[in-house]
Amino acid sequence: MNHRLLLACLAAMLFALPAASEDGYDLWLRYRPPSQVPVRELVAGAASPTLEAAQRELVRGLGGLSGAPIPVVPEPGQPGALLFGTPRSSALIAGLSLGLEGAGAEGYVIRSVTLRGRATTVIAANSDIGVLYGAFQFLRLLQTGQGSSPLDLASQPRTKVRVLDHWDNLDRHVERGYAGQSIWDWHKLPGWLDPRYTDYARACASIGINGAVLTNVNANATSLTPPYLEKAAALAAVFRPYGVRVYLTARFSAPIELGGLKTADPLDPAVRAWWQSKIDEIYHYIPDFGGFLVKANSEGQPGPQDYRRTHADGANMLAGPLAARGGIVMWRAFVYSSENSEDRAKQAYAEFAPLDGKFADNVLVQVKNGPIDFQPREPFSPLFGAMPNTPLMMEVQITKEYLGYATHLVYLGTMWQEALSADTMVSGKGSTVAKVIDGELQGYKLTGMAGVANIGADRNWSGSHFDQANWYAFGRLAWDPQLPARTIAEEWVRMTFSADPAFVEPVVAMMMGSREAAVDYMTPLGLAHLMGTGHHYGPAPWVSDLKRPEWNPAYYHRADADGIGFERGPKGTNATAQYSPKVAAIYADPKKTPEDLLLWFHHVSWDRMMSSGRTLWNELVYHYDHGVEAVKQMRRTWDAQRERVDAERFAQVAAFLAIQEQEAQWWRDACVAYFQSISKRPLPAGSAPPAHSLEYYQALTFPYAPGRG
Amino acid sequence: MNHRLLLACLAAMLFALPAASEDGYDLWLRYRPPSQVPVRELVAGAASPTLEAAQRELVRGLGGLSGAPIPVVPEPGQPGALLFGTPRSSALIAGLSLGLEGAGAEGYVIRSVTLRGRATTVIAANSDIGVLYGAFQFLRLLQTGQGSSPLDLASQPRTKVRVLDHWDNLDRHVERGYAGQSIWDWHKLPGWLDPRYTDYARACASIGINGAVLTNVNANATSLTPPYLEKAAALAAVFRPYGVRVYLTARFSAPIELGGLKTADPLDPAVRAWWQSKIDEIYHYIPDFGGFLVKANSEGQPGPQDYRRTHADGANMLAGPLAARGGIVMWRAFVYSSENSEDRAKQAYAEFAPLDGKFADNVLVQVKNGPIDFQPREPFSPLFGAMPNTPLMMEVQITKEYLGYATHLVYLGTMWQEALSADTMVSGKGSTVAKVIDGELQGYKLTGMAGVANIGADRNWSGSHFDQANWYAFGRLAWDPQLPARTIAEEWVRMTFSADPAFVEPVVAMMMGSREAAVDYMTPLGLAHLMGTGHHYGPAPWVSDLKRPEWNPAYYHRADADGIGFERGPKGTNATAQYSPKVAAIYADPKKTPEDLLLWFHHVSWDRMMSSGRTLWNELVYHYDHGVEAVKQMRRTWDAQRERVDAERFAQVAAFLAIQEQEAQWWRDACVAYFQSISKRPLPAGSAPPAHSLEYYQALTFPYAPGRG
Repeated sequence: MNHRLLLACLAAMLFALPAASEDGYDLWLRYRPPSQVPVRELVAGAASPTLEAAQRELVRGLGGLSGAPIPVVPEPGQPGALLFGTPRSSALIAGLSLGLEGAGAEGYVIRSVTLRGRATTVIAANSDIGVLYGAFQFLRLLQTGQGSSPLDLASQPRTKVRVLDHWDNLDRHVERGYAGQSIWDWHKLPGWLDPRYTDYARACASIGINGAVLTNVNANATSLTPPYLEKAAALAAVFRPYGVRVYLTARFSAPIELGGLKTADPLDPAVRAWWQSKIDEIYHYIPDFGGFLVKANSEGQPGPQDYRRTHADGANMLAGPLAARGGIVMWRAFVYSSENSEDRAKQAYAEFAPLDGKFADNVLVQVKNGPIDFQPREPFSPLFGAMPNTPLMMEVQITKEYLGYATHLVYLGTMWQEALSADTMVSGKGSTVAKVIDGELQGYKLTGMAGVANIGADRNWSGSHFDQANWYAFGRLAWDPQLPARTIAEEWVRMTFSADPAFVEPVVAMMMGSREAAVDYMTPLGLAHLMGTGHHYGPAPWVSDLKRPEWNPAYYHRADADGIGFERGPKGTNATAQYSPKVAAIYADPKKTPEDLLLWFHHVSWDRMMSSGRTLWNELVYHYDHGVEAVKQMRRTWDAQRERVDAERFAQVAAFLAIQEQEAQWWRDACVAYFQSISKRPLPAGSAPPAHSLEYYQALTFPYAPGRG
Repeated sequence: MNHRLLLACLAAMLFALPAASEDGYDLWLRYRPPSQVPVRELVAGAASPTLEAAQRELVRGLGGLSGAPIPVVPEPGQPGALLFGTPRSSALIAGLSLGLEGAGAEGYVIRSVTLRGRATTVIAANSDIGVLYGAFQFLRLLQTGQGSSPLDLASQPRTKVRVLDHWDNLDRHVERGYAGQSIWDWHKLPGWLDPRYTDYARACASIGINGAVLTNVNANATSLTPPYLEKAAALAAVFRPYGVRVYLTARFSAPIELGGLKTADPLDPAVRAWWQSKIDEIYHYIPDFGGFLVKANSEGQPGPQDYRRTHADGANMLAGPLAARGGIVMWRAFVYSSENSEDRAKQAYAEFAPLDGKFADNVLVQVKNGPIDFQPREPFSPLFGAMPNTPLMMEVQITKEYLGYATHLVYLGTMWQEALSADTMVSGKGSTVAKVIDGELQGYKLTGMAGVANIGADRNWSGSHFDQANWYAFGRLAWDPQLPARTIAEEWVRMTFSADPAFVEPVVAMMMGSREAAVDYMTPLGLAHLMGTGHHYGPAPWVSDLKRPEWNPAYYHRADADGIGFERGPKGTNATAQYSPKVAAIYADPKKTPEDLLLWFHHVSWDRMMSSGRTLWNELVYHYDHGVEAVKQMRRTWDAQRERVDAERFAQVAAFLAIQEQEAQWWRDACVAYFQSISKRPLPAGSAPPAHSLEYYQALTFPYAPGRG
């Protein structure tokens, strides 16, 4: 047996081993053989920390995928060389005509060329970070079996700010976190730089994420003090080669809490001076600090309205000193005032639309995908398209606060695609939310997407293997909000599990249907916010005694003897009028409103006939039943894959699906029991009565559900 | 190349790989080759879940250590067979004369015998769990290079109850935990059984730990409700084959909180009936439930004194129904009342010694090693030896609440050995604490040791690699309280890192000196409790304004213009009189008191001459300086081992030692600055002034230090 064959044997055995024990730490960057790797040698090009990162990743990826170390050579010497870099870092690349003119500041090209008469692959960009993105894309092509044909590919991000929002507290509790403690081990920083920080940055860069808001939007001024800035700076140094900039949340009252001032009025000169000085201090620690994310005058957080100033006054005060340093402000539009509880869905629009054009150039207003709060299904927020002179970034929630935590398999790519492909009609047909977000429609100069991270200290990062797909999908959609959710799911499945079509096809289908299943067993037909109080775990549609009306599930579903749903048409709160006229005309009319949003927009009779021919009551129960059935089908799909996936991940997914089925049944039974107590109608034929009495479900409590705020 | 050689190559390569990336998950059960493995085949003997566990571990261990799979055969067929089991599980073992009569219920023998004319190794015991313990011991012999000579070994535990106390809350916060969240993922139990639970049980069994108190001594009655009992039962089922019984903490007021009673008076019939019924319910879920650990009338916890009953009344009420089921009560003697603050060190003795003989047979009174609270150095508790008619178990703290958290390398084996080898003199010379604990001295029928776990969800379990040694040492000492700390350290180093003498010798020496280093830079010469308020992180000897006197560091050190120390001799609180007369005579006299406990027992002049020829003040500073210097030396020792340890573990240990050096310097500087402000004496020649002013150290705050209560 010759050396080469022995090596191949060894490699095969080496890489066969982990099949029995993958724990998910490697995410979609597993680089397991065998793959077709059309590269014989890598031309060294580590001229900067970012290019070093690219080279390290290519060595790791190509070596892993091929099962043998890839030679790194100073100059291309044989057919099959891989060349990477910028025109500045590589004279060879500078000498090629690669079409880099159109690649932009962060984009890349990957091309098969002939160099000195030999077939060569080139990954090139105008910037080092573009090269790193290209390197990850090249590895993705190999991982997904698309790397062998002649390559001629160019890509650049369609949004500029692609950030993860970590709702992580300084004590490592993660608000709405279901993957263990915060990965930021503040206590040991800056002395201990967990290798995990580097792997976090690698994973982010691999999908184009270029920023991390380290701290909770429910902000703590302590994060702006020197000891914590020193810790944040240590993280920033780890992230820097991977193009991930550090952002922090700014507690609006910090000038009082840290500065000893009497006010945080954004027009007060002392307050402005304090922030100027604080921002200077931050840039002293973190020269490429990204800026602030601010939650103000929302859910008890302080803000400019405490001083009768506007959100724009508040944002612009911070934006001024940041602008000089290249930083930005992301100002959340997630507000609902304690005074006006007529219709919570209207409030973000009501407060922000009038401020259009009043924000400084380096302010992004951060708008959740829907008008309320990350529900299983919401219509798109009416703010999209309504602020043509104010760049809006979309905020989505990767962590599954309202979607069963880590144990429910719910792929969110479809949900985000639904929001992004929604047509605002503000400039005629095709005025999709995606085109608002990426600036195409209204010419935003600054663009962005934010995802509330689902990342924690759990070994598998996201609390479950399939929740990694949501992190992945967020990054891919932030890069290109028009990318289809199915394409993303397919990429992810191939990279994360297996490229075997017998695995890919059913598992992708399972993912694609998973969000609709969750909608069905939780909040079908446009229902929303039926979750347990505070922790949002499990069903509690009966809750109606909380202090503020809009904290109560009953506020949202408004079920009574006649029917169910929140009337937001002209006869109700007229929230539909916040949409552009053509969209408003659809949503205002219960006959035109899509049935999957019917109860969001309208209060309708239990006996209303639906397109299926069923009454609304029967249709509601049908959806609950269907949700449970869909989860059972997901279990069957997964169980059939036992031989195609390693034992450890197979077992965890299977166990979580079993939990999901139990909880889907619980959701269905509790909701059906409750709504039946109001509708007083019999269950449709073939629909089983709930396993327990309504009182049983009402008595369940979960004082230690994770992730509480 | 033949098959065997190829396999060997593959194995060598396989097992060479992890050298670059060990993350500590495998603890001391790494089983890495090459080792001398004198076993050619394993005779199958998996006749019960526990024997199955033994067989699995032997297959894993022998295969790992030898680098090739070990054949499992139905009958011994060649020289070098390994046979394991009990006389009941194996006719072959039943036919051998192995001396099992003396092995007891949990002990084992490991013997080289000749069976059917062939050299055979036998691991045998009277019980399945004894066999599992023997299997782990056999693997330990191989791991530490002691497996090749003819074996003739017998061992049995010297204590009966060897438990880990997890101070873990139901929300996964670990009180005094520095290794991440609780490993008990209550929310996902019982649906998801993390494979980590099995590895926890394996690790415990490998060192003879046979119980786990799952919940915090600061107890929550919710842990006794059916949903949580179901979760605890799921853990118990995982642990059962490994001989680890589940215990829970009992909140004394649970009859009020859960049962709706008006009282928790232990003599009230309704209260007694409630506990009887609750205990029946627990055994319904967990048939081999171990019993309760109770913290009562201590630090705000409810207890029998709330009803003018004694600790014995409270313990015996629970002990009755438990006795019928084979369960026990572990009742903590850690009490200090809010009324009597004359000398906290006296209170446990004062409350418990009068109750000697009043406890039911299945009650263990759990006494901390020292009279106060897990300080870097305390004298042994005067209760040891003072309750001849009440079995006392020793409670030690594995988690380093007062010893620098996870980033300080402090091997606690020496500290516990110091306590265990202390001579109570209650029955003449040689009446060591160890002999009290293991029942040899006073004939206790029930014996035990408890360790407050340092285990969390961190990948490496204990927060640092070297903190694993403290988990290991606890188990080994609970098995045999007379085992030398150095022997344990050597075993652990060989199993966990390397058997290379060039590594073992200096690293064991570093561990052996590490606790004295911590004493020196924190609380030398018998000082105690100088740590920061609440979190106990870092120095705060100046604190004197907390509500209860014994919460203040100033209460403990009592430094004034004349001198420093807590006078506990006859001229002071006379706490020394709690010891037996001969010991009391030593501690009562400052001339006889060992200098390392001098300030614990006596208030002495700054100018007192010490045995070194230095004044007390100079000696104090000398110890602080010496502590810092010792950590610098530890860093040098470790840095010299770079080539002998994998990169990942090397880097983390090195980074933590750097943090330790910084913090040792901080401790030294802050304490020297503070004590100098009182002693008004110059620093000795050659001793550097503190880096900052006293005010600087006093101004430091750590609101998010981990592990708070």
